[in-house]
Amino acid sequence: MNTGFAIYTIDQIEPLLDRRGVIEAVREALVQHARGAVQSPMPGQLVFDDARGDCHIKYGHLSGSPSFAVKIATGFRDNGRLGLPTGNGLVLLFDACTGAPLCLFQDQGWMTAWRTAAATALAVQCLAPDGKHRIGIIGTGPQARLTPEWIRELLPDASFLMNGRDPVRTRETAALCGAEPVSTVAELLAAAEVVVTATTSAEPLFSAAAVRPGTHVVALGADGPEKQELPVELFARAAHVVCDDIRQCASLSDFGKAVDAGAIERRRALTLGHVLGGDVTTPRLASDITIVDLTGLAAQDIAVATWFGTRLAETRC
Amino acid sequence: MNTGFAIYTIDQIEPLLDRRGVIEAVREALVQHARGAVQSPMPGQLVFDDARGDCHIKYGHLSGSPSFAVKIATGFRDNGRLGLPTGNGLVLLFDACTGAPLCLFQDQGWMTAWRTAAATALAVQCLAPDGKHRIGIIGTGPQARLTPEWIRELLPDASFLMNGRDPVRTRETAALCGAEPVSTVAELLAAAEVVVTATTSAEPLFSAAAVRPGTHVVALGADGPEKQELPVELFARAAHVVCDDIRQCASLSDFGKAVDAGAIERRRALTLGHVLGGDVTTPRLASDITIVDLTGLAAQDIAVATWFGTRLAETRC
Repeated sequence: MNTGFAIYTIDQIEPLLDRRGVIEAVREALVQHARGAVQSPMPGQLVFDDARGDCHIKYGHLSGSPSFAVKIATGFRDNGRLGLPTGNGLVLLFDACTGAPLCLFQDQGWMTAWRTAAATALAVQCLAPDGKHRIGIIGTGPQARLTPEWIRELLPDASFLMNGRDPVRTRETAALCGAEPVSTVAELLAAAEVVVTATTSAEPLFSAAAVRPGTHVVALGADGPEKQELPVELFARAAHVVCDDIRQCASLSDFGKAVDAGAIERRRALTLGHVLGGDVTTPRLASDITIVDLTGLAAQDIAVATWFGTRLAETRC
Repeated sequence: MNTGFAIYTIDQIEPLLDRRGVIEAVREALVQHARGAVQSPMPGQLVFDDARGDCHIKYGHLSGSPSFAVKIATGFRDNGRLGLPTGNGLVLLFDACTGAPLCLFQDQGWMTAWRTAAATALAVQCLAPDGKHRIGIIGTGPQARLTPEWIRELLPDASFLMNGRDPVRTRETAALCGAEPVSTVAELLAAAEVVVTATTSAEPLFSAAAVRPGTHVVALGADGPEKQELPVELFARAAHVVCDDIRQCASLSDFGKAVDAGAIERRRALTLGHVLGGDVTTPRLASDITIVDLTGLAAQDIAVATWFGTRLAETRC
């Protein structure tokens, strides 16, 4: 029967996107996550070695929310040969009072991109040094391309630099998102007060010595133990290290590599939601280096799905 | 654009049900599971204490299958007050070569009921004593009611007895599924060669001493540590103890309680798929008591979803 069940395609979802609204929903989700008000077990995973793909299942419930969410995201590296995007997936909302399925979002992975961009904007803003905001983005993929327009929601005066491995692609992507292309990572680090890494790199993108005092670094690319964007030594130099989730960053991301290498003690990390919620303070000197390490939380997926579910239900009335 | 994505409601799914076809798909899945050819991580779970509900997520891939499945099943105990069924949920199939979502089954939990009934029929047949098949079913819920018609697919000459706590409901359910109602569990145990327990009981339904020599017992009700249908002492008397999955039964079902109580050593258990596949032999004397403990496997969910996905895709051509 499921008469109330709704199915939304990306063509219905995307026109409703309000970046500022999504950012505030993600901010609240990160705060609630940090305060322990989110039920979000460890994500599930299937791996397809022959097809060079994987599937991640994230699911959870924000305490008091009328719905809970399940997100299924796939990534198959050889899809390009078939003319298909690497990533795919869908998001489901269920009624948290009856268990009934409420809606399916055929979002093709866009909600994940948006919640990641929203967290990036929040992570940049919360520890950005005072004054000018020149933001250097390393990476030219879809997530890197989204980043400037989301950061502008919180820092309207920011300007952007972009660097990728391929100069042609760097110029093209930079033009699409209003960034200035730069030829080298060194050039980017020399000019930017904030550095955002949005790559799938398996090794550090620069040396710790190359990072200027006063730089704020937001790393969002590493989401598995095989990936790394930041040198472990940078964590030893940082005045504040902030993780979206300390346990998840310790097992999946740059922070974990730094802990394993002895560059930082695990207990020194702060949780992003505590910073955003004002539960901790993070005073910074002009010369302080700071790091936010993002891995992506089920809480963000729930928040974005619930946000769109509410807006889409309104449009049906 | 997901143009190939299909959504099927229970009204489209149910007419295609071919019990024998589903049983053979489940048999193959159980055999493959036992042989290690199924990737099926531990199920995910969310718990909603206030709403007295939970959500289970099972997912996996049979080696070589062109698709993989994710099943989301909810159970909310107070739904009856709202005129809703306790259980709900849906099943999704994805392309195992590209990760693309293939179809959504709004099955309202029926695929789970069918795959459980299919495994029950296989578990009854594989160790049923020779000769007459009087099969006693304890329980009068939806799963108990399905059981006879599925067992008849493999044992056409079987006859059925049924007992539940409520005599009126026992008579009604027995009439609906062609079973003879009996007033007491003792009466059922005295008359049946095979006993199937399909309840949500939290304590043993009978004593070990009440089970006649030569009885084959199939327990399918317990799927969590808080449930129990069989007395632990029965495991000490059993010639063969078979689990759909030894680890899962040890943590979720009657077998685990018996191991914890020292009634049986864990290493004595066999895996159902090994019995069905002929990988082990289970000779039985006329006086042997045998037990199959079922908890339900992702492999079965995958098999049934794939079976229906194939049939439904054919009907669209």
